[in-house]
Amino acid sequence: MADTVYDVTTWAGATVSPYVDIGAVINQIIADIKSKQTTQTTRPGAVIYIPPGHYDLLTRVVIDVSFLQIKGAGHGFLSEAIRDESQTGSWVETLPGASHIRVRNNDGHNEAFLVSRTGAPATVGRLNSIVFQDFCLDGVNASKPYLPGNGKTGISFQSDNDAVRIEGMGFVYLAHALIIKGADAPNITNNFIAECGSSIELTGASQVAKITNNFLISAWAGYSIFAENAEGLQICGNTILWACNITLSSGNRASITSNKLLSNFPSQIALLNNSSENLISANHFRRVHGDGTSTRFDDKFGMVHIAGNKNTVTGNQFSFDVPSQNITPAGQDPTIVLVKSGDNNYLASNHITSNVAAKVVLDASTTATRVLHSATTAQLDALTTNHFMVATPS
Amino acid sequence: MADTVYDVTTWAGATVSPYVDIGAVINQIIADIKSKQTTQTTRPGAVIYIPPGHYDLLTRVVIDVSFLQIKGAGHGFLSEAIRDESQTGSWVETLPGASHIRVRNNDGHNEAFLVSRTGAPATVGRLNSIVFQDFCLDGVNASKPYLPGNGKTGISFQSDNDAVRIEGMGFVYLAHALIIKGADAPNITNNFIAECGSSIELTGASQVAKITNNFLISAWAGYSIFAENAEGLQICGNTILWACNITLSSGNRASITSNKLLSNFPSQIALLNNSSENLISANHFRRVHGDGTSTRFDDKFGMVHIAGNKNTVTGNQFSFDVPSQNITPAGQDPTIVLVKSGDNNYLASNHITSNVAAKVVLDASTTATRVLHSATTAQLDALTTNHFMVATPS
Amino acid sequence: MADTVYDVTTWAGATVSPYVDIGAVINQIIADIKSKQTTQTTRPGAVIYIPPGHYDLLTRVVIDVSFLQIKGAGHGFLSEAIRDESQTGSWVETLPGASHIRVRNNDGHNEAFLVSRTGAPATVGRLNSIVFQDFCLDGVNASKPYLPGNGKTGISFQSDNDAVRIEGMGFVYLAHALIIKGADAPNITNNFIAECGSSIELTGASQVAKITNNFLISAWAGYSIFAENAEGLQICGNTILWACNITLSSGNRASITSNKLLSNFPSQIALLNNSSENLISANHFRRVHGDGTSTRFDDKFGMVHIAGNKNTVTGNQFSFDVPSQNITPAGQDPTIVLVKSGDNNYLASNHITSNVAAKVVLDASTTATRVLHSATTAQLDALTTNHFMVATPS
Repeated sequence: MADTVYDVTTWAGATVSPYVDIGAVINQIIADIKSKQTTQTTRPGAVIYIPPGHYDLLTRVVIDVSFLQIKGAGHGFLSEAIRDESQTGSWVETLPGASHIRVRNNDGHNEAFLVSRTGAPATVGRLNSIVFQDFCLDGVNASKPYLPGNGKTGISFQSDNDAVRIEGMGFVYLAHALIIKGADAPNITNNFIAECGSSIELTGASQVAKITNNFLISAWAGYSIFAENAEGLQICGNTILWACNITLSSGNRASITSNKLLSNFPSQIALLNNSSENLISANHFRRVHGDGTSTRFDDKFGMVHIAGNKNTVTGNQFSFDVPSQNITPAGQDPTIVLVKSGDNNYLASNHITSNVAAKVVLDASTTATRVLHSATTAQLDALTTNHFMVATPS
Repeated sequence: MADTVYDVTTWAGATVSPYVDIGAVINQIIADIKSKQTTQTTRPGAVIYIPPGHYDLLTRVVIDVSFLQIKGAGHGFLSEAIRDESQTGSWVETLPGASHIRVRNNDGHNEAFLVSRTGAPATVGRLNSIVFQDFCLDGVNASKPYLPGNGKTGISFQSDNDAVRIEGMGFVYLAHALIIKGADAPNITNNFIAECGSSIELTGASQVAKITNNFLISAWAGYSIFAENAEGLQICGNTILWACNITLSSGNRASITSNKLLSNFPSQIALLNNSSENLISANHFRRVHGDGTSTRFDDKFGMVHIAGNKNTVTGNQFSFDVPSQNITPAGQDPTIVLVKSGDNNYLASNHITSNVAAKVVLDASTTATRVLHSATTAQLDALTTNHFMVATPS
Repeated sequence: MADTVYDVTTWAGATVSPYVDIGAVINQIIADIKSKQTTQTTRPGAVIYIPPGHYDLLTRVVIDVSFLQIKGAGHGFLSEAIRDESQTGSWVETLPGASHIRVRNNDGHNEAFLVSRTGAPATVGRLNSIVFQDFCLDGVNASKPYLPGNGKTGISFQSDNDAVRIEGMGFVYLAHALIIKGADAPNITNNFIAECGSSIELTGASQVAKITNNFLISAWAGYSIFAENAEGLQICGNTILWACNITLSSGNRASITSNKLLSNFPSQIALLNNSSENLISANHFRRVHGDGTSTRFDDKFGMVHIAGNKNTVTGNQFSFDVPSQNITPAGQDPTIVLVKSGDNNYLASNHITSNVAAKVVLDASTTATRVLHSATTAQLDALTTNHFMVATPS
């Protein structure tokens, strides 16, 4: 076996069992990698395998080497929420499984994995092509809506990074599943993130992040996807539910297409703080009433909320089905799309269905919004004359 | 090596060669796992590796543990149909390969893999996060259209299940490739299912199943995807051909987007038995005439057939090219989209091209269908006045 | 361990170190496979693992067996362009990593991997289900725009092939990253191809190729995706940038949907030589001015260029932002979509935003183009009266 291949269960250098503290073992492996890879041109990184098992993590892992691949044998999801609401005496198993890490830091930190390398200029600190793949990070104990909850974070990138990959991972019962600061071209695909406060947070600023083919199942206090100052974000082919909330703050040129979006709450997609030229196309939006309560947004906020210019909403289905007594403010018509501010936003070929009268609302401050075959005359509530309407015939 | 890692070719506990009966070996491994993992909180499951090789399966595998990952080294597809129609004397290889399992049950069962755990209540039986990845299930002998054919099934889930994964698998020459009953959030991605009767069947009822990025190549007797009572199904980014047939029976809030759909037969997507609020967007539909004959549907059935309410068809291309003598009933114009029943179905921004006169048909029973820039006046055949038309100009 | 599992670093049959010439080692492994797998029904192939490390490749690998899986532990991308433009004295690592192969042929060939098997008829030569997964091919030295550049090719398939897979791979600093001739149902997904001349080239003719969920980052001299005589190509969910250029020559029934497309140059999608019945839907197009210069196309060529019949462009966002002094020919309005030739092309529900006056142009030779809610009256430049316009209201 090449000396770049590690198995946490067999590596002879560990001073503690990985079942007792896998964090300490991985830190020791990283130290071993660094002791062997010592020049600019001899640092290919390594792969660290985590076979199926229940592992505790007491010590935060700090990753400061590029190209590290940490890989297990499955995301191992089991619904801890259903478990905690059930009589489990007769259950066969009551924990998540596969390569299952219980996040139980006793080191004063909140993260299971921190990716960070100090140094200046930024390029020195920049970390490349780190891979997290096919294992489970479990916050162990939590209650809805998980935020602030137990305050635990699964993986946090805090150094600028390029081409990192989060693939096939499971996250459960964490306040923050995945945080990436300063991301360039991260690939977040095929993960199962569920029963967490927030699923994916792209902080600082990001370039061309790609979030595809995931299950993101967050509760109502946080976000499914939160991105600040994101340029060119791609969100495609995801199933996002329970309280789908994709929020961009000053995010431009995002493409949000072909997603399945379900929520018990308003704000399924919010484009805030002058987010512009974003595309929302071919998505299925479903709004229901059920588990959880929240006063964070009322139904005037919109299933889609737009504060910015030149955004496009086309080819989507909006399906609203909430008992009228559960709509807030009481007695109001819920808003499907709110164009809150901005110029030249464009809605075309969207289909709105609802159990109650529901509206596309154009705020008084907005200009030149096009609403084309996206609302019947009765479904448009334009607070400005500065707009263009081609009504869905009715 | 951790004791949760098995290799079918090296595991000392096997009483038979995996090349003779890999089914028996995997059953023995599962028994070994169960003998070692004996409490509710000590059942992480295991990984079972299948290295490249030709394996026979004589005995059905019964999986009744969660978190099991069965993993090979490739889907190993080789077209057995082309082989069986060719002179193969000079061929280099004539079998599928990689981690290749020949399904040859001599145990009286039809399935290679049955996932089932008995017990009550349902949560006891519910199985979590089982993974089938990167191996080939081959029915060995078959003839078109493969259903009922040899009657063999690749994988059948018959207990309620959560978050299972079918990824990178190959299926060939099976009557039923993959059946999942009672699925919650299954992930079926990146598979190669070809020359089977039916590719994917979601029976009973399912929640938020995700079927993405697959090749599904079925013949004309079965289904590419069949789902009954499915809520929130996501079908995205698939290439489905030969006889693409996606059928939902009482399926609601599905999102069928960005797929490439090719067929020699009608009924590429059928929404039956009051399937409602489904989205069909950004798909490419192609209808040709070629291999195979079937009287299951005639050309009045529609490339898309809708029986339900509030469905949306937007942003699709429909490309019909069948010699007029092959259209049935003889002398009739073929139907591109048939709205068979229901209220408030919505078609917008679809492009129909055809070598013959082709129609969007609204049945007499339908109400309030919108047909917006989706047909020229000549392309609409409305059997009711209760509809709204904005014709594609011509 | 089964004898179908090889590790380049431990295989006893190698006569040279894989770090010195991994190409020679893999060729020796292939010879070993062929010596052991000698009949039509005993050729399952093998898996060859490449652990993390820096490997040189001096000798071209020739793959003439089906079902081979070559697999590493990560795409290992590091931006060599940024490196070469920076002071790297303080950088921690200056090479790509993970399973990192430096392409340094000294054998007179240009390819790192050639997939080719001679023989007649074609089915004899046809190679099935070969897999390249999760390693890095690095051209070592290059300068923009990388074509003709160092002339190196990463992987070239030159025999007809079926169901091959390119997944999770990294390519950097190559003139041609991936060439596949004569492809049937190849699966190209989840790769990171960057700083190459051309990313993906499907030559000869292809059937139902699927290109999904990739990062493709090419410079301006080549192509992101080039396909000739492609039938039924699927391009979905990719992020393509820097100089996004998808070109189809005589390509029919392609589906190009839900992609994020960014370029510093015209011709983001070109449908040439009578490419017909293709679908371009739900894509985000962004055109900026920045790195690189090229006279290959001027701004009259179109961000989308259509020469063919019955194509569909729907539900896309076009975002043009180039300083007027950088637009060519000087003083001209840039073209967003050029319908250069053909009948019955269809544009609907597209949103064009631009910092300057920008146009949809219908050439004088074109007939029956529909432009529906895709341009304001001012944005249409129709050189023929043979068209139909429903203007975006303004």
